[in-house]
Amino acid sequence: MSTYSAPLRDIRFALYDVLGVEAAFRQLRFDDANRETVDAVLDESARFCGTVLAPLNKVGDEHGVAYDKDSGGVTTAPGFKEAYVQFAEGGWGGLGAPVEYGGMGLPHVLGMPLEEMIDAANLAWGNFPLLSHGAANALRLHGEQWQREVFLTKLVSGEWTGTMCLTEPHCGTDLGLLKTRAEPGDDGTYSISGTKIFITAGEHDLTPNILHLVLARLPDAPAGSKGISLFLAPKFKVARDGTVGERNALRCGAVEHKMGIHGSATCVMNFDGAQGYLIGQPHKGLMAMFTMMNTARLGVGLQGLGLAERAYQNALRYARERLQSRALSGAKFPDKPADPIIVQPDVRRMLLTCKALVEGGRALAYHAGLQVDIADHGATEEERKAGDDLLGFLTPIVKACLTEWGVECTYHALQCFGGHGYIAEHGMEQLTRDARITTLYEGTTGIQALDLMGRKIMQLQGAGLKAFLAMVAAFCEEHAGDASLAEFIAPLREKAGEWQALTLAIGKRAMSDPEEIGAAAYDYLFYSGYVALAYWWARSVAAAEASSQPQAFKDGKRETARFYFARILPRTLAHKAAIDSGAAALLSLDEAAFDA
Amino acid sequence: MSTYSAPLRDIRFALYDVLGVEAAFRQLRFDDANRETVDAVLDESARFCGTVLAPLNKVGDEHGVAYDKDSGGVTTAPGFKEAYVQFAEGGWGGLGAPVEYGGMGLPHVLGMPLEEMIDAANLAWGNFPLLSHGAANALRLHGEQWQREVFLTKLVSGEWTGTMCLTEPHCGTDLGLLKTRAEPGDDGTYSISGTKIFITAGEHDLTPNILHLVLARLPDAPAGSKGISLFLAPKFKVARDGTVGERNALRCGAVEHKMGIHGSATCVMNFDGAQGYLIGQPHKGLMAMFTMMNTARLGVGLQGLGLAERAYQNALRYARERLQSRALSGAKFPDKPADPIIVQPDVRRMLLTCKALVEGGRALAYHAGLQVDIADHGATEEERKAGDDLLGFLTPIVKACLTEWGVECTYHALQCFGGHGYIAEHGMEQLTRDARITTLYEGTTGIQALDLMGRKIMQLQGAGLKAFLAMVAAFCEEHAGDASLAEFIAPLREKAGEWQALTLAIGKRAMSDPEEIGAAAYDYLFYSGYVALAYWWARSVAAAEASSQPQAFKDGKRETARFYFARILPRTLAHKAAIDSGAAALLSLDEAAFDA
Repeated sequence: MSTYSAPLRDIRFALYDVLGVEAAFRQLRFDDANRETVDAVLDESARFCGTVLAPLNKVGDEHGVAYDKDSGGVTTAPGFKEAYVQFAEGGWGGLGAPVEYGGMGLPHVLGMPLEEMIDAANLAWGNFPLLSHGAANALRLHGEQWQREVFLTKLVSGEWTGTMCLTEPHCGTDLGLLKTRAEPGDDGTYSISGTKIFITAGEHDLTPNILHLVLARLPDAPAGSKGISLFLAPKFKVARDGTVGERNALRCGAVEHKMGIHGSATCVMNFDGAQGYLIGQPHKGLMAMFTMMNTARLGVGLQGLGLAERAYQNALRYARERLQSRALSGAKFPDKPADPIIVQPDVRRMLLTCKALVEGGRALAYHAGLQVDIADHGATEEERKAGDDLLGFLTPIVKACLTEWGVECTYHALQCFGGHGYIAEHGMEQLTRDARITTLYEGTTGIQALDLMGRKIMQLQGAGLKAFLAMVAAFCEEHAGDASLAEFIAPLREKAGEWQALTLAIGKRAMSDPEEIGAAAYDYLFYSGYVALAYWWARSVAAAEASSQPQAFKDGKRETARFYFARILPRTLAHKAAIDSGAAALLSLDEAAFDA
Repeated sequence: MSTYSAPLRDIRFALYDVLGVEAAFRQLRFDDANRETVDAVLDESARFCGTVLAPLNKVGDEHGVAYDKDSGGVTTAPGFKEAYVQFAEGGWGGLGAPVEYGGMGLPHVLGMPLEEMIDAANLAWGNFPLLSHGAANALRLHGEQWQREVFLTKLVSGEWTGTMCLTEPHCGTDLGLLKTRAEPGDDGTYSISGTKIFITAGEHDLTPNILHLVLARLPDAPAGSKGISLFLAPKFKVARDGTVGERNALRCGAVEHKMGIHGSATCVMNFDGAQGYLIGQPHKGLMAMFTMMNTARLGVGLQGLGLAERAYQNALRYARERLQSRALSGAKFPDKPADPIIVQPDVRRMLLTCKALVEGGRALAYHAGLQVDIADHGATEEERKAGDDLLGFLTPIVKACLTEWGVECTYHALQCFGGHGYIAEHGMEQLTRDARITTLYEGTTGIQALDLMGRKIMQLQGAGLKAFLAMVAAFCEEHAGDASLAEFIAPLREKAGEWQALTLAIGKRAMSDPEEIGAAAYDYLFYSGYVALAYWWARSVAAAEASSQPQAFKDGKRETARFYFARILPRTLAHKAAIDSGAAALLSLDEAAFDA
């Protein structure tokens, strides 16, 4: 079985030393978020995740969820409910929620290490409370006051959970095609009918009620994505005064059999004239849903990060224990029957790739999370706008890169185990299977790439990129004379210039052919992710040197940064060449000739 | 459920047009292997694999194998045994085996499309007959005449199957550590005791007897890998006259629960004084095993190829059917509610990556397979030696690249399905899980890389590389004036020169530090694989142009080659940069600081 111990030292390093959240929290007037509180939150999260959730990870994989055809009910794996009760009682669901609705009112960015730890400990379990955040955000931003009082408080307290019902059998990415209908009734409620699929936590036994946030069309809705409205339909009806009534006309029709996250209930949900309330304005549902989706996308990025961290920890332990062959330059442990495989350069290549992507990715993700707080609580309109721009720019990068890196790291980690990685016993194959969903849900990698290239760069004229490049330039300027950082600053400066030029070149080509956007998108996203990570690695070395961390920690940061610059950053060469080759290589082949 | 239809047109193209096997077979005096026979073999293989094996693929995944603790017996999934009987009756197990032992005596390379089709149709099932080849080769090359008559004939006819018992709990890669012991008896047999793990087809109900090829130590054996001998221990004892006797003292102790290939029995085998015969010379068992392993490694490469082909076929179908969103340059199918996703450049990127790696990989693998025939049947000692050199050089490339590309292609293909790829229904997730074993067994990718860099390049002074580069140079020379190939010849020539220079540079560095070999190995292997594929793609375009294939097929080859050179070959830039950075970036970090 794989084990997990929260990497608290590195999490603290990312928050305090790299991002400097203490100063940021003061500036954002989070008066309660002092170091003592933050440390207590981290310690307690680590304890809960390590001792309660992590041991249930394999249980969830083996038991899955049980669906009862007659009742339409879903029973979660043994221990899941008890863990959820502890989670709710601990108030974890309301960490970043406003105090007036029962939340702790702490900065959003503090929810990121919590989510990372939950996902590393037990991704399938983590999916139950995860979507409550999205639903809570939708209510907070778009709900009426009574809706917030009745529903938001229940989500914040964890008494009920929420879902996001978007996908239908014939539409996922293209929600403009959706068919679920909502008929207005006489009493201000709506009657919702349709079938939704892939609904995470659509049905379960953790809480007595479940709030479904459902996209549907009103009778007078225009066609396409501009005719979609957002509704709330509870499993058990809820009156405006909060009274819980009879069972609503909605039901789980099946649970999916999946490659992984077996402990998570992925439901087909049938709405058969279910009573619901309109959330926000008619026909404006898609925009409301997209607002929520941004935080959900950061959350999925953290899933990739968490799984990669857990995979790395286990591969490292195995590589130290497993004795096999000798180092090519001669035995390193002549008293043992063979050397541990960690002496092998190729095993180190895999481990260092994990370490570089995990620790660099942590800074990248947490920094994006901090922009949520700046966008919400910045002192000036300008500051808030800047945070929002940066958040919009970073969200697809965090979602796509951290999930693809999660897949890559779980791959390397399993590979370190050789054949032992493929059998269930060591738990590495579960991490691989679980990771595979993260590049698919909440928008595939390809969709993130289009969001970055088409929307954040082209439509919004790259405001977020400009802000990021300005950060990079300022950092390079600040450390221009620092000999100990010169090995990182020079290539970083060069890559940042290349990034800018590459962006302009794509933009120019796209003016004459919009297909160039789609053709460049994937490689541009990863190019961006790798250059962004180079920045975070350079900053991490600087932060480590300036910190009071032990020497081994500082060495770890510097040597991993060197590895990153020498052996990972060159992936940008391949991505750039692919981008430069343009759309023709992708579009010239006639569709019929793919299997001629 | 995923479907499979054997790609006969491309298989024939690879054999006849790209490799020119008709001329090669004449030269090697395979008089029976004329085009009519070859076509008949291919057609019949395609029929058997498509209609008998493919429908059992999901059955095997769902049923797995049943282990009975009391008897130690293993029951295979429904239909597996019936399919095996058909396979044996068809004589498929003896395709390339010598006529004097009941085989068809056809060229080895013809077994490659057969294996590819079996693996694509049903990888787990294919693992039952697969290891019989290895065991048969060991007997053919190292067995005594009576052993060949008694045992080899049974393997060729498929009446019995064989296994390769190498791995023990504490040793896989490093067989020098193995502990299983063989005590000589008075009657010329040996008594074998020890535990072997990960034994594919170690126990099953397909045949009445199973022949275990077991590595063990004799009492007087020197320590390490020079003290290992090879033995044959049947499940039911077999006398020298072929009489089958009582149950031998060996038993399956458990079957592994694995990520995939559920239908394949991966057994713990306990030998408890089992009666066995020595095969070959005492203490020379490891070399005998390595001989067999070469063909097994090519076979695992074909597993990667077959799974990639099947994944590609299904992703292509889905991409044509799934309607979602519009092309960025405007609707391509305005009469439909949305465009099929194959109009999206990023979906085409994934599909073309599969097509380029599968079709290019097919030529690469079959060419390696042809070297087995040349090494065995070449007219002169020199020719046979050249075939053997090239085979040794290509084997780790085929094994590692085709399996890693198999993982990559099943990944892309699943990704094309979005969330639908993650659920069991479409069968894509099974292909992904099944593919994951291929980079692990028969030597991990890292081990293949060391075999290439350390043994085939360094120890053997790159004889195979030189032969391959000579082929490339001859091809470039031959087509130097061909304007229609110029776009491929120029970069190919450049890369070939770079490949040679890179090899010399690593060799030079390795003279002062052998760790440079291990540090370069992985990236060197993939660098080599991508340049080799560039050659096969250039040759494929030339072969298509010279053929009577329909225009759409020729276009498919040319446009895919363009895609390959524009968007895949640049991966060599990242691999070269990693190699050039040397061993320091991998070895500088103190082992203790990996998680300091």
